[in-house]
Amino acid sequence: MDMHDLTRSLQQKNDSKIVMLVADGLGGLPLESGGLTELETAKTPNLDALVKKGSSGLSIPVKPGISPGSGPGHLGLFGYDPLKYVIGRGALEATGIGFALGPKDVAIRGNFCTVGPDGKITDRRAGRISSEESAALVVRMRAVKIPGVEIFVEPVKEHRFVLVLRGEGLGGDVHDTDPQAVGVLPLDPKASAPGSEKTAEIAKEFIAQARKILADEKRGNALTLRGFAKRPDMPSYEEVYGLRAAAIAVYPMYKGLASLAGMDLVGKAQTLDEQLTLLEQNWSKYDFFFLHYKYTDSTGEDGNFAEKAKKTEQVDGAIPRIMALKPTVLIVTGDHSTPAFLKSHSWHPVPTLLVADNCRRDTCQSFGETEALKGALGQFEAKYLMPMALSHAGRLGKYGA
Amino acid sequence: MDMHDLTRSLQQKNDSKIVMLVADGLGGLPLESGGLTELETAKTPNLDALVKKGSSGLSIPVKPGISPGSGPGHLGLFGYDPLKYVIGRGALEATGIGFALGPKDVAIRGNFCTVGPDGKITDRRAGRISSEESAALVVRMRAVKIPGVEIFVEPVKEHRFVLVLRGEGLGGDVHDTDPQAVGVLPLDPKASAPGSEKTAEIAKEFIAQARKILADEKRGNALTLRGFAKRPDMPSYEEVYGLRAAAIAVYPMYKGLASLAGMDLVGKAQTLDEQLTLLEQNWSKYDFFFLHYKYTDSTGEDGNFAEKAKKTEQVDGAIPRIMALKPTVLIVTGDHSTPAFLKSHSWHPVPTLLVADNCRRDTCQSFGETEALKGALGQFEAKYLMPMALSHAGRLGKYGA
Repeated sequence: MDMHDLTRSLQQKNDSKIVMLVADGLGGLPLESGGLTELETAKTPNLDALVKKGSSGLSIPVKPGISPGSGPGHLGLFGYDPLKYVIGRGALEATGIGFALGPKDVAIRGNFCTVGPDGKITDRRAGRISSEESAALVVRMRAVKIPGVEIFVEPVKEHRFVLVLRGEGLGGDVHDTDPQAVGVLPLDPKASAPGSEKTAEIAKEFIAQARKILADEKRGNALTLRGFAKRPDMPSYEEVYGLRAAAIAVYPMYKGLASLAGMDLVGKAQTLDEQLTLLEQNWSKYDFFFLHYKYTDSTGEDGNFAEKAKKTEQVDGAIPRIMALKPTVLIVTGDHSTPAFLKSHSWHPVPTLLVADNCRRDTCQSFGETEALKGALGQFEAKYLMPMALSHAGRLGKYGA
Repeated sequence: MDMHDLTRSLQQKNDSKIVMLVADGLGGLPLESGGLTELETAKTPNLDALVKKGSSGLSIPVKPGISPGSGPGHLGLFGYDPLKYVIGRGALEATGIGFALGPKDVAIRGNFCTVGPDGKITDRRAGRISSEESAALVVRMRAVKIPGVEIFVEPVKEHRFVLVLRGEGLGGDVHDTDPQAVGVLPLDPKASAPGSEKTAEIAKEFIAQARKILADEKRGNALTLRGFAKRPDMPSYEEVYGLRAAAIAVYPMYKGLASLAGMDLVGKAQTLDEQLTLLEQNWSKYDFFFLHYKYTDSTGEDGNFAEKAKKTEQVDGAIPRIMALKPTVLIVTGDHSTPAFLKSHSWHPVPTLLVADNCRRDTCQSFGETEALKGALGQFEAKYLMPMALSHAGRLGKYGA
């Protein structure tokens, strides 16, 4: 029995509202031993006030010592075991550009490459063709037609694009066609497991037609396909939690991840202020709101400690408008740590705050990594955050009599 | 390899004594944000003194966010994974009246109902017949005889009774016969999985004979059967831990749960004082003692904060007599939290204290939810408490060389 079996069987409905505010890459490190982290440096009076009445703790995104990408990081927060639900490379690439993958889809990462008159690869990245040129080639490839299959080709960046095949009986287990070398022919797509033969045939046909369309290009007269993947077979928020869930995010990747969990993508906000307006406007329509804020991560990736602290203060600034709505449960957390000191995602547990009338108190006085060590939530795997949110919202019945 | 595989292979015998004192529903919440819990309000000088030399922590009964019933709550404390060992409804009902289920038994919840001359149900609860009338009908049903099966019928309350069928080859997978509606016939018992056909046949014969016995009753001239279940296939304390275990409880439910784990039910105490006398009298006969105290839960369920605090002080009052016996390991914990604030079982971790000469010290100064956050035991799943008890008692050898 896993956590979703439990939440599925114990879920009960009420009028509660749950808000999960995810500051991407929230956790950090001091620049010098004994110093303060970005979060501890930031002035966060609103969060600090909530800490005094809420439960603090630290979320372990996957398992101790494991640094997650955005995919596993968010799946964990959404309550999907990130070691059980694996998002294949193609599916992640499609998700990253906001393509809503369906259950009949196989998503594939495509690369334009250049081949010589003998068909052998001379440049695996088509001379690092620009995004503009590449997008024009993508549009031309949309002329490919294969009976019984719907085909989507979407530009990504430079020589990269996404190919999605939609149809019945398409498995996702096909070997890459990129030989990872120049001076050799691209490989033919071949099924790596039974049930994906049809996908391999269609991919082969796609390549053949596309090669004709691209034949006269100097750069990008051919292509390789990699990371064939179906979307992970994830149950929806509605099914496992009984929640009508809304995602209010700016960047496509996070919208895509939320849509894998069956959340509605609400609005087209470009700023945190616009996200809060959408939250207010949609308050009565949903039970659960996922708000995603990107810039605590990107400043961390840049190694810009001061700027990350400043962006953290923007997150703090969002709190009054959220609390004015009187959520039953507010959670503030991150999908992983991105310490400016490391300029990358890290494995460090993420400061997390849960506020509800029925939460345990602790002695934490401010929102920060060291303070959270004293918190009532302890250190916990991210996948347990949703069950805790549900129980604090009165949405889980008793297990056993 | 699960924890029982470990304890089974590593167990070793000695003269140690382990006492587990379970204050049902021990954990609580403050009535107002920032206030004290029931346990923190109670004067517990004996427990506080032990906290200073013991290890404190918080027990998570099942998983974070999950509120357990008494069954899963106690299985966890006894070291049985409450998600692996599930007690079916009939088995729990039988356990709740203290019926010691054996491995050949199928336990069933019975309801008296009333049917009209056409056999269709007119009242699913036999007019809410009194417990006294119902018990008399139960006694009359004991006249039912079916070759090759031993039959037990026991009264529960009002229209409810327990039926236990004991015999070879009886599976527990039979559909309910209660149609959940009036104006229709009761259903025939039907196997819901292979291996339970014999159970269904015997249940059908039981109903036929019982209907003849009850035919002239105005209320309760028929019956429905629900929740067919075998006892969970749990290994015994003796086998997995090498412990001769005694349960000293007042209420039938907790005696029943202890008997599922193979504990001996000792005496017929009605008060905590009588339980302590039984503990003293049986000290030399057992290695492990489970003492159950009910009233911290029932006062919590009533929402009576002050009374729960007072009952907690009674638990504290039991400590000197227990410590006078010089147990090698004393554990004080609860099977779940029952905050008066919520008037129900909850998911909040339960304050837990382990005292032994070889336990880690911490900085906790008193027994309480917030103080325990600093404890040496940390926050842990209840199922790990028994292995910790065994190791502190010198009863577990080294794993691997």
